[in-house]
Amino acid sequence: MSGAATGERSALITLAHVLEPGDERWGELVASWGAQQVLDRIQRGQTGHAHEEGVRARLAHVRSRAEDRWDPEQDAARVGARIITSHDREWPSQLSALGRTTPLALWLLGAADLRLLALRSVAIVGARACTAYGEEVSRTWAADLAGEAWTIVSGAAFGIDAAAHRGALAAGGTTIAVLAGGVDVPYPRAHAPLIDAIADSGVVVSESPPGEQVRRHRFLSRNRLIAALGRATVVVEAAVRSGAAATAGDARSLSRPVLAVPGPVTSPASFGCHRMIQEGEALLASHVDDVRQALDLTAASSSSAVQERRTGRDALPAREREVLDAMPARRSMSLDALVVASGRSPGDVLAAAGVLVAEGWLVLEADGWRLVRR
Amino acid sequence: MSGAATGERSALITLAHVLEPGDERWGELVASWGAQQVLDRIQRGQTGHAHEEGVRARLAHVRSRAEDRWDPEQDAARVGARIITSHDREWPSQLSALGRTTPLALWLLGAADLRLLALRSVAIVGARACTAYGEEVSRTWAADLAGEAWTIVSGAAFGIDAAAHRGALAAGGTTIAVLAGGVDVPYPRAHAPLIDAIADSGVVVSESPPGEQVRRHRFLSRNRLIAALGRATVVVEAAVRSGAAATAGDARSLSRPVLAVPGPVTSPASFGCHRMIQEGEALLASHVDDVRQALDLTAASSSSAVQERRTGRDALPAREREVLDAMPARRSMSLDALVVASGRSPGDVLAAAGVLVAEGWLVLEADGWRLVRR
Repeated sequence: MSGAATGERSALITLAHVLEPGDERWGELVASWGAQQVLDRIQRGQTGHAHEEGVRARLAHVRSRAEDRWDPEQDAARVGARIITSHDREWPSQLSALGRTTPLALWLLGAADLRLLALRSVAIVGARACTAYGEEVSRTWAADLAGEAWTIVSGAAFGIDAAAHRGALAAGGTTIAVLAGGVDVPYPRAHAPLIDAIADSGVVVSESPPGEQVRRHRFLSRNRLIAALGRATVVVEAAVRSGAAATAGDARSLSRPVLAVPGPVTSPASFGCHRMIQEGEALLASHVDDVRQALDLTAASSSSAVQERRTGRDALPAREREVLDAMPARRSMSLDALVVASGRSPGDVLAAAGVLVAEGWLVLEADGWRLVRR
Repeated sequence: MSGAATGERSALITLAHVLEPGDERWGELVASWGAQQVLDRIQRGQTGHAHEEGVRARLAHVRSRAEDRWDPEQDAARVGARIITSHDREWPSQLSALGRTTPLALWLLGAADLRLLALRSVAIVGARACTAYGEEVSRTWAADLAGEAWTIVSGAAFGIDAAAHRGALAAGGTTIAVLAGGVDVPYPRAHAPLIDAIADSGVVVSESPPGEQVRRHRFLSRNRLIAALGRATVVVEAAVRSGAAATAGDARSLSRPVLAVPGPVTSPASFGCHRMIQEGEALLASHVDDVRQALDLTAASSSSAVQERRTGRDALPAREREVLDAMPARRSMSLDALVVASGRSPGDVLAAAGVLVAEGWLVLEADGWRLVRR
């Protein structure tokens, strides 16, 4: 990373401590001026943002907490977390769909690579006050999809969310929990063991720094992250106006498929799902196959979309180029075979393949990776 | 009725004894030549229909059953039934939507006027092997709609059908049962008391003569009658390939709205409903209000359609003209008020109003009849 890039990255992380997640106006300023410029102008009172004064006060407060030099990376490491921004390899490319509300930085807790997981992921969300029926659907569909290497994204809440995470874990799959507070502030508290288990094999994600408590409006901005990280969003049970319905709305505005699971018309927990289907805001999902089909369609369209964005072969880093060169022309190749063919370590191959998928060179299939034909 | 019309009517009734219901080719011949001509040509072996010989044999057999002169009206009267054809006032005008599969004649058992009931009717159908949930939805929605003077049309089968009829009766409403055998052959047998109760206030309908047993293929041709008699069809629970799904298909081909009630995705009894919604073959009905809305739309479109067909005021029979003259320009008028205003008996007013609705002069609303404005 160049010095300028390091400066931008560090400025993004600083801003992530003091700006409210999902504020479009700040996002616009960061996009136009860069994070460093925005920081400077906040200090000089030149952003024109209505909340500038409060932000400047928060900035002074955050920096004053450190005894000598303020180091967010160290703060993160203290709770076992790492920080990523769009300047880092692990940054999921699909977050760019959020435009002006793209997060400035993310705090991650967990063993897995967020970018790699997010490339093959599906959000399963729903009511906290769910029924046994909804819980069963959430758990079994999550297990089925996780068993096919789909990562289940959800919000760690009671009810449908927890059932989705648990289904994925029970199937030996991976799952991503997006929290509304810091990654070291498990919420709800009763789910601390669940959130620990998620971090053991998957990733716990937050756009708030460690120690940050959940606040009401952050649940809504958190929902947009769940929608953006999933290739598609499945709503299992939802009241008519609910967080899950909001997540579905976010997914729609990102042009991601939204599916809703019907239930008894006598069950208020299904009213929101029925409404979404009636209004044409969601497809009816009557079987996990309907989710698979929606995901297949997005995989096809997203690989053709990123194909246009991909960089030239020669511009790739050595590791990625070597893995790419080892790929056969038409067949797919498993991790083990790629390790042998490339002479790279499994960790290297996994990381390189993640980058190559994100940049449209490879697609991840059930039995390994395959070259995308031009 | 003129002598020629009487002859046609009688020929239609005779044909209804010997042709299979819903045969398009016979329907075409009757439409081109008239029923009397078709009868004559069957006798002379000149119809060109592949089944002509069998029909001729059945004709000889039917006529031979009578000791002196064969009289279908008497046969019907013997079981308390009446026969109607398109030459009779009680013939529901919406059956013409069936085109070549329009029934030749109908046998009716019951106190009410079929034409009048069918003008404000909705079909509720579904699985025999239904769940307690489906039964509850069928019963309560039928009761709600019947309580607003909508007639519930169904097939008297076990499960959803029976629940719909029972809901209508419990609400003090009227209901129509369309049977696959003769009106004196209650099927299933266990529903003989239910079918009796339906005839007490509503109508039991069949296109087969008395004594005719149910046969497998007649259930399918019976379903098209249910679809044609209802302004809209609601499927409460249905397996993927089922009689209820077939009825829904019939309603679609008649351009009548089809609604399907979702249920748990874990319940096979709801699979057909979910499939229909997914394929765009049915609207999702999550509340009886969704059915009301679909019916309001059809009432609006059908009254504008018949408006164009209506005959001149001077061509109306005296009874209808007198009732029409008694109608206020803008307000609706109840039966009691119309009896006073027209000086006719309640029976006369009811019959006349039925004709006037069918011919587009009046619309039937919750509180009575109202003039259709040109």
